[in-house]
Amino acid sequence: MAVYTHLTDTEIEAFAARYPVGQVLSCKGIAEGVENTNYLLITETGPYILTLYEKRVNPMDLPFFLQLMEHLAQKGISCPLPMSDHEGLALGRVAGKAAAIITFLNGQWPRDIDLHHCRALGFALGEMHIAAADFTLTRRNDLGVEAWRPLYQKSAARVDAVLPGAAPRIEADLTDLEANWPNDLPRGYVHADLFPDNVLFQGERLSGIIDFYFACRDAMLYDLAVCLNAWCFDGTKNFRRERAEAILSHYQMIRPLTDEEAAALPVLCRGAAMRFLLTRLHDWLNTPEDALVKAKDPSEFLVRLDFFRSAADPGALGLSA
Amino acid sequence: MAVYTHLTDTEIEAFAARYPVGQVLSCKGIAEGVENTNYLLITETGPYILTLYEKRVNPMDLPFFLQLMEHLAQKGISCPLPMSDHEGLALGRVAGKAAAIITFLNGQWPRDIDLHHCRALGFALGEMHIAAADFTLTRRNDLGVEAWRPLYQKSAARVDAVLPGAAPRIEADLTDLEANWPNDLPRGYVHADLFPDNVLFQGERLSGIIDFYFACRDAMLYDLAVCLNAWCFDGTKNFRRERAEAILSHYQMIRPLTDEEAAALPVLCRGAAMRFLLTRLHDWLNTPEDALVKAKDPSEFLVRLDFFRSAADPGALGLSA
Repeated sequence: MAVYTHLTDTEIEAFAARYPVGQVLSCKGIAEGVENTNYLLITETGPYILTLYEKRVNPMDLPFFLQLMEHLAQKGISCPLPMSDHEGLALGRVAGKAAAIITFLNGQWPRDIDLHHCRALGFALGEMHIAAADFTLTRRNDLGVEAWRPLYQKSAARVDAVLPGAAPRIEADLTDLEANWPNDLPRGYVHADLFPDNVLFQGERLSGIIDFYFACRDAMLYDLAVCLNAWCFDGTKNFRRERAEAILSHYQMIRPLTDEEAAALPVLCRGAAMRFLLTRLHDWLNTPEDALVKAKDPSEFLVRLDFFRSAADPGALGLSA
Repeated sequence: MAVYTHLTDTEIEAFAARYPVGQVLSCKGIAEGVENTNYLLITETGPYILTLYEKRVNPMDLPFFLQLMEHLAQKGISCPLPMSDHEGLALGRVAGKAAAIITFLNGQWPRDIDLHHCRALGFALGEMHIAAADFTLTRRNDLGVEAWRPLYQKSAARVDAVLPGAAPRIEADLTDLEANWPNDLPRGYVHADLFPDNVLFQGERLSGIIDFYFACRDAMLYDLAVCLNAWCFDGTKNFRRERAEAILSHYQMIRPLTDEEAAALPVLCRGAAMRFLLTRLHDWLNTPEDALVKAKDPSEFLVRLDFFRSAADPGALGLSA
């Protein structure tokens, strides 16, 4: 949780005046989001999110993210719609930062994962992949398989301080993943960060998918691999096969997996575990003591990496034959 | 800014269901408030603030604070109205903490203080003092003059580390204030923490006074002394007499000061500077490095204490004869 950039009332009003959102009634910094500063902006036309893009987002990528959200929202996917200003631009500047105003989605993210969440998630992810298919801009996954070894090198000398004894395992996994990573799976637009705090629910209804700031073109199966990492382990770190089954079966109601995808599920899950292990490890070692945001513990993804290394059978991951 | 207590969606829904606020649509932790955890709760009937009272608030004082707000709101003062639950109680419990739902006030607090803010502030403060006059509960000011020396003792040995060379001045001021503190000024209900971030504006209109969690019975003049400390110094630490004049003259349109109050303004301003200097000093020395909230710099109140020590004439503080 963090507000990195504090705006004055005057700055907020001048910025909002560029967009057709009406008079500003209130604007509160919200304690969500790790990468950007988010304000909940209430105007006479309702609530919005005002996001300031901080240094971890490459400004060159912002048109891709915002136009993908716009594309999806216009196709009926419950995701935020960036507002266009009076010149037709979504992206503006305030306090020296790139910024945008996006629609506010009702709902809350689920802290206690239930099977009905998993079913709705699988279904919505399938719909999102289909709706994105005719989007035209592109962005590569800069946290894909080629990025992992360089990222690991930055932390390699200090792995033992955080994850004692894990270095040889991680290095062997890296070599394995590089050698066996499938590059011919069906590609599309992936969210790439579909953790529970990016999915809103109202009761049992999935009301929104948010935070598209890692979205890119990649194997669609990778989104499912992220979901199996992010939604299918319980507090005791056990894999909950029934959750994976719920996600995968409901996804396939919309887009059935090919045989190649089914076979590749274990290696993609292992790769997704590697991606989050490495970014968390890097952040853990490089977050200053006095940072506004506490780095997340990397060890839970070491547990998941270990699990997926030993789970070579797609059936064990909830995929019916 | 801080969310000390994280609530699950289930906890939020169960808690809100006790109050006549309708279905929960969204609930976001907000990055405001130092003492308590605040969520911006949006329901089908509109926005509210859900506050969890953290350890710095004495639970015994909560009925006083909530009923004072209710009293003032019912008299037309723009302050939050605590919602009563289905049993008629404002105070509830969630996640082991005392908690309440209060109405949401539009507006933003002014980062750049202008004279129109000061005029509206003085006027609203006068109205608040009059509206509170027939409130019946009581609470003493536990940060009043008797509390200062014990508070100072806790930091005395380490003053030099933060405010080099200031200890003898602070000690002489304490002795002086204790000897000369007037105890017979007109008493009433005071907010006691009326800083700009507790006063909301929409354009030039004052739309709300918030955060009554230091309110107590004390000399009404003390609120003006806090305002002269909190609103009347600019970024270069200079006293801006015209702001004080705007506050005092508009306050007196509602409640003229007595001669005793006029004469006591300098010593009360000096006392208010002492109160904030001592609490900031204590927090500065006792806030852990990894705390969610950064302690505020005490030195700006040393500058104000120095200023008010040398300003013995009420006229110099903006009070017309």
